[in-house]
Amino acid sequence: MKFERIDLQLLTDCHYFGALHACDVLLHRNSSVPWFILVPDTELNDVLDLPQAQLQEVMAECAAVSSFIKQDLGYSKINFAGLGNVVSQMHLHIIGRRASDGCWPQPVWGALPEGGNYSMEELNHWQVKMVDHLGLSPVAL
Amino acid sequence: MKFERIDLQLLTDCHYFGALHACDVLLHRNSSVPWFILVPDTELNDVLDLPQAQLQEVMAECAAVSSFIKQDLGYSKINFAGLGNVVSQMHLHIIGRRASDGCWPQPVWGALPEGGNYSMEELNHWQVKMVDHLGLSPVAL
Repeated sequence: MKFERIDLQLLTDCHYFGALHACDVLLHRNSSVPWFILVPDTELNDVLDLPQAQLQEVMAECAAVSSFIKQDLGYSKINFAGLGNVVSQMHLHIIGRRASDGCWPQPVWGALPEGGNYSMEELNHWQVKMVDHLGLSPVAL
Repeated sequence: MKFERIDLQLLTDCHYFGALHACDVLLHRNSSVPWFILVPDTELNDVLDLPQAQLQEVMAECAAVSSFIKQDLGYSKINFAGLGNVVSQMHLHIIGRRASDGCWPQPVWGALPEGGNYSMEELNHWQVKMVDHLGLSPVAL
């Protein structure tokens, strides 16, 4: 994975956590909800255009991040999406939701209030858990 | 597939087109964009929780509908999502988008203007194409 290949807008909006085998892993800076973004290694823009084998690998990594949000962070609901209307580079949203969050039941895009920044302690804690549970190759936060 | 198993809100919002092997196929009544909704045969709510084999089959059908929207309907961009904050039954949005549509670049949820109804002729035409190209088992519209 190459940090440099990721769209500047995504890098501006997110913390760069590291890499799984098929995707880079970002966390949106808005801490209102746990909002992970996976960036597959592809020049294609739409996830449903991926070749079957790569699609399966990407979806398995999305499912692993979803399990992390549910089991480690305690969310029971996940919103999953590949949109790309603003940033065309393929990126997949995996977002923990609950009825008490800032924009439930609306989707987060354009509706999520600012939630402040994560503390470095929390970012490090989540990153270590993702190394242990998902095999994340971490990068310095 | 059983028509009766599908959430009443989805049936109210959509035309029921028929069934593929793993999913029922609905088309949102708002004709502003081609907005298909696939309903997998499961009691689970979140697509990323599906067992691997079923996830692969569901994603293959989503990819087939995406190809239909791109190749037969002439859209170059697809929005794909599994949300389920309002209707909890698992359903996957596969939506053709273009820069000239009614809410570009916003996601459609809560932002898409009313687009009028499809004509019965157009619905029949699309349904026949999906029978031919995707192997849809059609139902009377």
